[in-house]
Amino acid sequence: MSFSQSHLLGIEPLAAPEISTILDLSERYVDLNRSNMKHGDALAGLTQINMFFENSTRTQASFELAGKRLGADVMNMGMQASSIKKGETLIDTALTLNAMHPDLLVVRHPHSGAVDLLAQKVNCAVLNAGDGRHEHPTQALLDALTIRRAKGRLHRLSIAICGDIAHSRVARSNILLLHKMENRVRLIGPPTLMPSGISDFGVEVFEDMEEGLRDVDVVMMLRLQKERMDGGFIPSEREYYFRYGLDAEKLAYAKDDAIVMHPGPMNRGVEIDGEIADDINRSVIQDQVEMGVAVRMAAMDLLARNLRANRTKEVMV
Amino acid sequence: MSFSQSHLLGIEPLAAPEISTILDLSERYVDLNRSNMKHGDALAGLTQINMFFENSTRTQASFELAGKRLGADVMNMGMQASSIKKGETLIDTALTLNAMHPDLLVVRHPHSGAVDLLAQKVNCAVLNAGDGRHEHPTQALLDALTIRRAKGRLHRLSIAICGDIAHSRVARSNILLLHKMENRVRLIGPPTLMPSGISDFGVEVFEDMEEGLRDVDVVMMLRLQKERMDGGFIPSEREYYFRYGLDAEKLAYAKDDAIVMHPGPMNRGVEIDGEIADDINRSVIQDQVEMGVAVRMAAMDLLARNLRANRTKEVMV
Amino acid sequence: MSFSQSHLLGIEPLAAPEISTILDLSERYVDLNRSNMKHGDALAGLTQINMFFENSTRTQASFELAGKRLGADVMNMGMQASSIKKGETLIDTALTLNAMHPDLLVVRHPHSGAVDLLAQKVNCAVLNAGDGRHEHPTQALLDALTIRRAKGRLHRLSIAICGDIAHSRVARSNILLLHKMENRVRLIGPPTLMPSGISDFGVEVFEDMEEGLRDVDVVMMLRLQKERMDGGFIPSEREYYFRYGLDAEKLAYAKDDAIVMHPGPMNRGVEIDGEIADDINRSVIQDQVEMGVAVRMAAMDLLARNLRANRTKEVMV
Repeated sequence: MSFSQSHLLGIEPLAAPEISTILDLSERYVDLNRSNMKHGDALAGLTQINMFFENSTRTQASFELAGKRLGADVMNMGMQASSIKKGETLIDTALTLNAMHPDLLVVRHPHSGAVDLLAQKVNCAVLNAGDGRHEHPTQALLDALTIRRAKGRLHRLSIAICGDIAHSRVARSNILLLHKMENRVRLIGPPTLMPSGISDFGVEVFEDMEEGLRDVDVVMMLRLQKERMDGGFIPSEREYYFRYGLDAEKLAYAKDDAIVMHPGPMNRGVEIDGEIADDINRSVIQDQVEMGVAVRMAAMDLLARNLRANRTKEVMV
Repeated sequence: MSFSQSHLLGIEPLAAPEISTILDLSERYVDLNRSNMKHGDALAGLTQINMFFENSTRTQASFELAGKRLGADVMNMGMQASSIKKGETLIDTALTLNAMHPDLLVVRHPHSGAVDLLAQKVNCAVLNAGDGRHEHPTQALLDALTIRRAKGRLHRLSIAICGDIAHSRVARSNILLLHKMENRVRLIGPPTLMPSGISDFGVEVFEDMEEGLRDVDVVMMLRLQKERMDGGFIPSEREYYFRYGLDAEKLAYAKDDAIVMHPGPMNRGVEIDGEIADDINRSVIQDQVEMGVAVRMAAMDLLARNLRANRTKEVMV
Repeated sequence: MSFSQSHLLGIEPLAAPEISTILDLSERYVDLNRSNMKHGDALAGLTQINMFFENSTRTQASFELAGKRLGADVMNMGMQASSIKKGETLIDTALTLNAMHPDLLVVRHPHSGAVDLLAQKVNCAVLNAGDGRHEHPTQALLDALTIRRAKGRLHRLSIAICGDIAHSRVARSNILLLHKMENRVRLIGPPTLMPSGISDFGVEVFEDMEEGLRDVDVVMMLRLQKERMDGGFIPSEREYYFRYGLDAEKLAYAKDDAIVMHPGPMNRGVEIDGEIADDINRSVIQDQVEMGVAVRMAAMDLLARNLRANRTKEVMV
C-alpha cells in the first residue's frame, strides 16, 4: 500500500499509486456504508475538527458522517460566526485549534492557498475541503471513484469537463487527477469562463459542445457559480442553457454509454436538463455523493495511519 | 409486539396496537433516561440525520438526544442555511442525503405533505417532526404517554384541546390519536381559530371554556401561533387570555384531578396562567418534555428493527 | 481527594484544596489529550448539554471536546436562535432542558447571576462558562494550571493582570483564585477600566505599566472588550497600545523569566505586540488553550462523580 502523505492539500502532490490506494480503500467503505453496521473504529480515540470558513452543507455533512462512522470525536466549528469576527487572524485561529490537539483538521476557506498556509502551522493532518479557486481534492477523488466503478477503469478515458472552468476548483483538481491517471481531458465552455494558460495542462479546449462532447466516455458538468460572477461577461441563464446546458440532443454527441456527472447542487434547466439528471442509465450524480463519504473515510483513515506512525517514530527518536 | 411501519409520517396510518407498542417501549426508555447509564445500543451502527427546514430548538434537541442515547451516529443539518438557498429542490436535497445512506431521517418542514413526499424518494425510515398544519406524530405520542402515566389509562377519558386549533398540527395529531384510542375529544376556541369541517372527526366543538372544560380529565392548551396569524381576525392577547387563557377559575370547571398540558414553549399570561403551569399537582408540562425523548427513542428503535429486518429479507430474496 | 461541589458556578465557592484537586486531575488529561488514544469513559452514559446564550466559539469548542473525549453524549444548543425568541423565559428553558435529563449543563449567559439562578432550578451539575461580568471559573482554572506548569508552583507568585478589569469576568475569577492560592495580585489599567471598590479584594492597583509590572512573575493581559464599551471614556486603540499594550519595552520591567498570558482572542497591536505573543520563550498563550480542554475534562469528571454518588445516596435513603 502506497500513501506517504501527511496532509491532503490537493491532488497536485499525490502520485498516481497514492490515488489508487485511496480509491481501493474507499471501495471497502462503500460496502460498510451500505450495511446495517456502518460504524468502524479506524479513527477511534482521534479528534476531527471541521473548520468551514465558507458555508457548504453537503461537503461538511459528508466529512462529518465519514468521521463519525469511523469512530472519531467530530466537532464542527462554524467559523463564520467565530472569533474571526472578533478580529483574530487565520493563523491565530489555527494555532488555537491546534492547541486543542485535533488529529484531523478539515478546512474550507474562500482564499486559494489558505489551507496550505494553515497546514504549515499545525501538527495534525489537514484535509483541504476546498480553498478558493485552487483545489478541492476529495471532490476529484470521489469523481474518480465514480468513474472507475462505472467504466471499470480510470485510464485511457476521454472525459469532458463543461461549463464554468475559470471559477472552479472542482475542475482544477479533476484535471490534475485525470491527467495523472493518463486520461484525455477536454474542457468545454465559453472563452470568458476558461482560465488563461489552461492548455499548458495538457488538455484540449472547446468552445462548442457538439465538437467537445464527440465520443467522450464521461460528461462532467460544473455548477454555474453565479455568486462568483459579477462582471456581466456571461450570457443569461437561458442563453447559457441553450449553448452549454446538457440535454438529450447534446448528450447524443458523446458515446452511447457515456455517463453524466455533476458535483451538485444542480441548477436544473441551467447547467443540465432535469430528465438527464434523473436518468438512472446515464446519470451517476447520486453515486458521486455516495462515493464522497467513502472517499473521505479512506483519506482520513490513511492520514491517521501516517499520523500515528510518525508520532510513534518521534517518540522513539 | 405489533409495529409494522416503515416510517412515522403521522398518527393517521397507525393502528391502535401500534400506538400501544410505541408507548410500552417508551416506558423502558423513561427508566433508562433517569439512570446514570443513559446510553444503549439499539441504534448502534446506524446513522440518523435531522433535517430541520424550520427552526425548532426543543424538538430537534429531543430527537438528537434520543438518537445519541441509543448509540446512533447523529448529524444535524441546518437546512435553512443549506443548498436549498442555492436553488436546489427539496427532492434533490433528499436524494443527496439519501445517497449518504442514513438509516433514520428526521424531517421538519413548513409545508404540509412535504415529509410524505420525501419519504417516497428515500430508502430509509423517515420520521415526521412536524409538517405545516398536517401532523406532528411524536408530539401526539408523547402527550399520550404523559396522559397514560398520569391517568393510569389512555381510553374513555374526556380530553379538551383548547385554543388555536386551526393552525395546529399538534391538535390534529392529538385528535387522531385520542380518537383511535377511544377517548372523547372536545375542542374549545374562537370560531376563527377552528378549522372548517372539524366535527367530522368525531369531536365536540365549544366556543366557551366553561362549557367545554366541564368534567374533563385532561386540559390540553395549545400555543398561540402568533407568527402564523396575520389576518387581524383574532382578539388581542389580553382579550384572548380573558376568554381562553387557562387560570384557576376556568380550570375549576374540569374534574378535580384533571391534568394540565401544554406543548411549549409557553406564552405565560396568554394561553396559561403562570401559577397553573407551575402547579406540580396539576401541570404535567415538564413530564411532556421528558416523555418526548423516551417516545422518540422508542419510535426510532422500532423503525430501525423493521429497517434491519426488511433489508435482511431483500438480501435473502 | 477533596472536591465536594455539586456545581462549578464560580471560583468563589471553591476551597483551595478543591482547586488543587481539579488541577491535579487535569494533569492526567493533558497527557491523554497528547496521546493517540484521546478518548476515555469517565462520562460514558451521561449527557452533557452546552447552552450558550452568548456566542463563544472557542469556549464552547473546548467544553464540547472535553465532553466528547470523556465519552459523554454531547449536545450544543444555539440558544440565540431558540425558544427564547418565542418569548420563553430563562427558567422555562432551563426546566425544559432539565426534563430531558442532562447530567452536565454548561451555560454561558450575558447576565451576571443567571447561571446561579438556573442551577437552583435543575437537578444536574451546572458549569458556568461565563456569566456577564461575574465569573468565568474554568478560565481561571486553566490560567492557574498554565502558571503552575510554567512556574513550578501556584503560590507566592507576583502576578499582574492588565487592561480592562472593569468589564472582565476573567479578571474577577482570576483574582479570586490567585488570592485563595496565596499569590500577590496587581491590577494595572486606566482608572476608567478599574472597578470601584476593587482594592477590598486584597490587590494592589496601578495606573502605570512600568510601576505595575516591576518584578512580576506573570503578566496576564486581558482582551479589550470593545463591544461592551460605548461611553467614549476609553482612549483610542493607538493610545491604549501606547500606554497599556504589552511590548518588549514594557515586558522588560517584569522578571527576566516572567511569562505572558492572554485569554484570547487577541487584538494584536492593541493589547499585545504580535512578537511578544509569538515568543515561545515568554508566551504561554497556546498552553492556556491546551490547558482549557484538560481543566474542563477534570471539572466535569469530578462533578459527575459527585452526581453519581449523590444519586446513589438518594436511592438508598
